Amino acid sequence: MQTTVNGNFLKLQSNYLFSDIARKVAAFKDANPDRRVISLGIGDVTRPLVPAVIEALHKAVDEMGDAALFRGYGPEQGYAFLREVIAEYDYKARGVNLSPDEIFVSDGAKSDVGNFQELFAAESVVAVTDPVYPVYVDSNVMAGRAGIMAGKQWNRLVYLPCLKENDFVPDFPKTRPDIIYLCYPNNPTGTVLSRQALQGWVDYARREGCVILYDSAYEAFITEADVPHSIYELEGAQEVAVEFRSFSKTAGFTGLRCAYTVVPKALKLRDGQGGAVALNGLWNRRQCTKYNGCPYIVQRAAAATYSPEGRAQIMGVIGGYQRNAAQLRSAVNALGLAVYGGVNAPYIWVEVPQGSTSWGFFDHLLESSALVCTPGAGFGLTGEGYVRLTAFGSAEDTAEAIRRMEALR
Amino acid sequence: MQTTVNGNFLKLQSNYLFSDIARKVAAFKDANPDRRVISLGIGDVTRPLVPAVIEALHKAVDEMGDAALFRGYGPEQGYAFLREVIAEYDYKARGVNLSPDEIFVSDGAKSDVGNFQELFAAESVVAVTDPVYPVYVDSNVMAGRAGIMAGKQWNRLVYLPCLKENDFVPDFPKTRPDIIYLCYPNNPTGTVLSRQALQGWVDYARREGCVILYDSAYEAFITEADVPHSIYELEGAQEVAVEFRSFSKTAGFTGLRCAYTVVPKALKLRDGQGGAVALNGLWNRRQCTKYNGCPYIVQRAAAATYSPEGRAQIMGVIGGYQRNAAQLRSAVNALGLAVYGGVNAPYIWVEVPQGSTSWGFFDHLLESSALVCTPGAGFGLTGEGYVRLTAFGSAEDTAEAIRRMEALR
Repeated sequence: MQTTVNGNFLKLQSNYLFSDIARKVAAFKDANPDRRVISLGIGDVTRPLVPAVIEALHKAVDEMGDAALFRGYGPEQGYAFLREVIAEYDYKARGVNLSPDEIFVSDGAKSDVGNFQELFAAESVVAVTDPVYPVYVDSNVMAGRAGIMAGKQWNRLVYLPCLKENDFVPDFPKTRPDIIYLCYPNNPTGTVLSRQALQGWVDYARREGCVILYDSAYEAFITEADVPHSIYELEGAQEVAVEFRSFSKTAGFTGLRCAYTVVPKALKLRDGQGGAVALNGLWNRRQCTKYNGCPYIVQRAAAATYSPEGRAQIMGVIGGYQRNAAQLRSAVNALGLAVYGGVNAPYIWVEVPQGSTSWGFFDHLLESSALVCTPGAGFGLTGEGYVRLTAFGSAEDTAEAIRRMEALR
Repeated sequence: MQTTVNGNFLKLQSNYLFSDIARKVAAFKDANPDRRVISLGIGDVTRPLVPAVIEALHKAVDEMGDAALFRGYGPEQGYAFLREVIAEYDYKARGVNLSPDEIFVSDGAKSDVGNFQELFAAESVVAVTDPVYPVYVDSNVMAGRAGIMAGKQWNRLVYLPCLKENDFVPDFPKTRPDIIYLCYPNNPTGTVLSRQALQGWVDYARREGCVILYDSAYEAFITEADVPHSIYELEGAQEVAVEFRSFSKTAGFTGLRCAYTVVPKALKLRDGQGGAVALNGLWNRRQCTKYNGCPYIVQRAAAATYSPEGRAQIMGVIGGYQRNAAQLRSAVNALGLAVYGGVNAPYIWVEVPQGSTSWGFFDHLLESSALVCTPGAGFGLTGEGYVRLTAFGSAEDTAEAIRRMEALR
């Protein structure tokens, strides 16, 4: 064989975080067959799809079995019925004017976030927060933009540390990046940016000529008034930002797969030949060439989350997760540990006790209480010294986890 | 804005084929409101999903509404229940041994075909047949492998002409390519490769060290015994070929979205540092980083096509399309035109009358008979002089189209 692979793929180290966790948990269960392990580590929802969504799915399935109503290929960008309700309820209701053709429906934010970097020049400089959701980094490693691993960081990436010292609000970088990934409410820290802080980033991007790739997959968990749900609530953002949204955590679609990406027509980049080009048309071209649209039945399910019943039902589910988060925050606080996040997000970021490490505290929680968390070190260099807890368990499991934590006091 | 786009995207000309067709058809309808237009141009199925699939969908939807049965994130590679039946029925039944972890389930062959090129070195040389399904070309243009458009072809692509002169069997290229896209049964020509001809290509790839990306989305339409359904029926193919399959045309899933890609573990490429690397692991890494799996309910629907009832039902639908194809072949033949394909494929490739062109014959068929075909020139340089007809219409529309053709004699 003479054909050669994309060498950038070979730079990627396997991410052993979740397999290491699984291995440790399995060993613990073997050694302690009588103890029930509760996971506060998973980032997946546990509650079933709400009745309005189930009803919409059944109806759409019946259409697909009916010759008169059957639908074959749909628009690569998503059906108008879904793009229109998104524009209406997720944006116009918050004072943001977007046209349905600025909204691209897809099978998941992971796909869109992973694929979107294709639109940028290979030599673009990429900034990511630290700690970070690994897809932003890995998709750019595969495209050759990350350089090489030096120590524990990639030498061509610009890292924006998020620590208690800066209240988890990243400072502007010393070097100008071309592309800035921001995720708020944040995974893994559960922290948010205030309106003022996010306006600062929009202004920075406008001043420096950067693009912000804004992942707001967790916006449905926001409870505080000063926290923007969409970056487009900020002035000038349509000229600099792409926004990724998902039905995964909003409506429990992690196994059903639907998301959308907003690419405003006002967002123009250099074409490399002295002109400007709208990113909207490029993403459309990418999707039309390499994607064939989200299943019709899934788009009907997504649209059902905007009906009055659908909305009430999904807010009920989110309310349950939010109660879990609040209770977990209190319980961890009562242990004398500093807690961040969890107010506007399903994630809680816990500072481990002085002298311990991410993995040390993970082991302690597992051995002492049969509880599983996620070591922060798995999300990047500055994640060391923290663990992530998630609020996606059942109310019963969360209550039991809290009882076990109380026993640790 | 200082950030620059991927300049390769700007090399892509908009493909006006289908919009030009739509514009001409709209103008004809405006001018002839009393005439009913029948399309023989669409590449989309028209019959509804079969009962076994509908039943499986309803059942899976109910599971998603039940707290005890709900499924969140699934494996990025697809559920074992589907990968196992694929290995059993699509491969083992034909004497091909593949392990389920060599099979990657996805949302569509277009996605997989479009994304797979990411695994290869940027400078790889790509060969495509001519005429060709545009995704093979466009996804490589976007990745910078096609060079620049010179005349009507890309100067870094290796074209393999498929003409009546070579019986639509491509000759081996003069220059060795790294990657060879083959699609059989072929879109757009509807022609096939015999076992011997395909073995020739496998042997060529082994000798020259190339990878074959084999698109067999239309294998369910094969009727003749000597035509391989899978490239892995040929000796040594697992060392050189990736195979793309889809439920779109097999089971009418164009609007439901499910496909799979086979990456045998025996397929190894150069790692660029003197060693070899298995493509299976690289595709797995790509999918885990940028994809979150096909919806659970859709995978259950796909699995239902392998049950005895499901299989019988989908073969019934395919049988209907095959009858359409046979009748269209005869009707076109009776017009004195040379016809290719349509025996093992839903596509029929018609040589236009001497002195006419693809578009000229398109106009003639529309004006005279209110029938829509697809001009072959839209599929590449050597598509000029042909039009494509598809067999995906209803039996009634196909019969009416044939009556209109008879009137042309």
